[in-house]
Amino acid sequence: MCNNCDYTIHGRHHHFGWDHSIPPAERVTPGSTLEFECLDSGSGHFTPESTVDDIATLDFSKVNPVNGPIYVEGARPGDALKVEILSFKPSGFGWTANIPGFGLLADQFKDPALTLWNYDATSLEPAAFGKHGRVPLKPFAGTIGLAPAEAGLHSVVPPRRMGGNLDIRDLAAGTTLYLPVEVEGALFSIGDTHAAQGDGEVCGTAIESQMNVAVKLDVVKDANLAMPRFTTPGPVTRHLDAEGYEVTTGIGSDLMEGARAALSGMIDLLCATRGLSPEDAYMLCSVCGDLRISEIVDQPNWVVSFYFPRVVFS
Amino acid sequence: MCNNCDYTIHGRHHHFGWDHSIPPAERVTPGSTLEFECLDSGSGHFTPESTVDDIATLDFSKVNPVNGPIYVEGARPGDALKVEILSFKPSGFGWTANIPGFGLLADQFKDPALTLWNYDATSLEPAAFGKHGRVPLKPFAGTIGLAPAEAGLHSVVPPRRMGGNLDIRDLAAGTTLYLPVEVEGALFSIGDTHAAQGDGEVCGTAIESQMNVAVKLDVVKDANLAMPRFTTPGPVTRHLDAEGYEVTTGIGSDLMEGARAALSGMIDLLCATRGLSPEDAYMLCSVCGDLRISEIVDQPNWVVSFYFPRVVFS
Repeated sequence: MCNNCDYTIHGRHHHFGWDHSIPPAERVTPGSTLEFECLDSGSGHFTPESTVDDIATLDFSKVNPVNGPIYVEGARPGDALKVEILSFKPSGFGWTANIPGFGLLADQFKDPALTLWNYDATSLEPAAFGKHGRVPLKPFAGTIGLAPAEAGLHSVVPPRRMGGNLDIRDLAAGTTLYLPVEVEGALFSIGDTHAAQGDGEVCGTAIESQMNVAVKLDVVKDANLAMPRFTTPGPVTRHLDAEGYEVTTGIGSDLMEGARAALSGMIDLLCATRGLSPEDAYMLCSVCGDLRISEIVDQPNWVVSFYFPRVVFS
Repeated sequence: MCNNCDYTIHGRHHHFGWDHSIPPAERVTPGSTLEFECLDSGSGHFTPESTVDDIATLDFSKVNPVNGPIYVEGARPGDALKVEILSFKPSGFGWTANIPGFGLLADQFKDPALTLWNYDATSLEPAAFGKHGRVPLKPFAGTIGLAPAEAGLHSVVPPRRMGGNLDIRDLAAGTTLYLPVEVEGALFSIGDTHAAQGDGEVCGTAIESQMNVAVKLDVVKDANLAMPRFTTPGPVTRHLDAEGYEVTTGIGSDLMEGARAALSGMIDLLCATRGLSPEDAYMLCSVCGDLRISEIVDQPNWVVSFYFPRVVFS
């Protein structure tokens, strides 16, 4: 962790949604390092004693808090904010939920479901999913972004070109992210920390887990990015791939329906071969399975594939 | 390679499109091994002497030939054909083209472009892309499928639930594929061999390359698959991932537009940082870059990411 960061941004400096009128929690010069003591995406609603009934009392006005905003001196519209993601200090407790109305198969999974996780915050050994298997961990921040130019309060749920709720599981330690700046000072915030997630975050939640995040912020003048981009220093799936994958496909003229078909196929396969309940299979897919677009050019049908890492059951 | 396969299916046993009335090239019992001497997807149109002008004379009634069909005794509708992909014997020559009207950015890339590849068919060392970099190879069959129940001739271009032009780059040696059977005997065919391709095959072609393929065919009774699925015996991207990735994103409410934005961002980045022409960047992305769906649940905006392997330039 960042033992000698320039700033600590405590949990009390959190906000809900994006609004460029929120006063900065700190003003920093380019090159500064900061440690953010992030809350989890449920603002601490779930604890090791929680049950599925606690989903009903989740306050949606208090989900997905982010710490910040940070005003970076000299950052102006048209620049990029360079975010070096330095390290994570995870808490060891996490939760995954099927929240009714949310998720890729919300029409099929209408009842709430909750999984609680306890993992070793130091070793980050794969975390037990009941008696079924173990999920490799790779901490990252699901929400990492900048304030929009457009005035007013904007929901934190959808990501935008300034980033936000990107839920890109490779925004892990060592990665450098570039975000388009829309307002003076960039106004950077971060939160929604995850201990593990697959590409897609298909059930709508990852292993949601409180942790601290250390980053270094810098400014790239006149980058004129259309969208966020990032660089990973090395492989991104070796924690998952050693035993190969079970893969299901969705084939057709609509990528969304293809993704839904591929995921449904994987849930059916896991239920048939591993004895999981559909709800457990759905949540397990969300924390470690990957949606890929295998082909997008063979008109009029595209192939979306869902990759489930076999190491989970080894 | 399959030195002692039960059957060799020579190049003359190819057909264009899917039609369950095409007479079988061979009738085999479950458990049989077969070596297919596939043509390339251009039916040999392109040679080491070809130029971009040869794209204009490509005969679209003769693209994407597949060898077969193979009637597998005992296979019936509702079963799955189990295809163990044993090995490939590549030719060492390949081509990648931007064919006007075809590809994810066909509206932006209206002029034909052609890249020729020469690679070591024995070592399969990464293949040189001009002076710009080297592309890791992993041979696979782009088109692998069964005849449909619906009568008549069906275009080979779109993949369907019985497989076909899946263009899934992980259908490499060692992978086991399961295809839904729709007609008596399954009527298996294979072709469209590729020396390398990224997830998406974004410009519409891979490293198209003539090669032989050996497979073992078996029947799984009453599998009742909705769509193809497969199992990989080990990692699928370690030939690409050692140096990490440059990643661009497309964020919005439509996955197709997100994919197009992510790809456009990568082409811009490669042109700006590596001095590639846009056409070269587009073709290079097609043979080694991957489209992934990073999140598909944060309504109303999804994130599609394009991963370009940095090892190509190392």
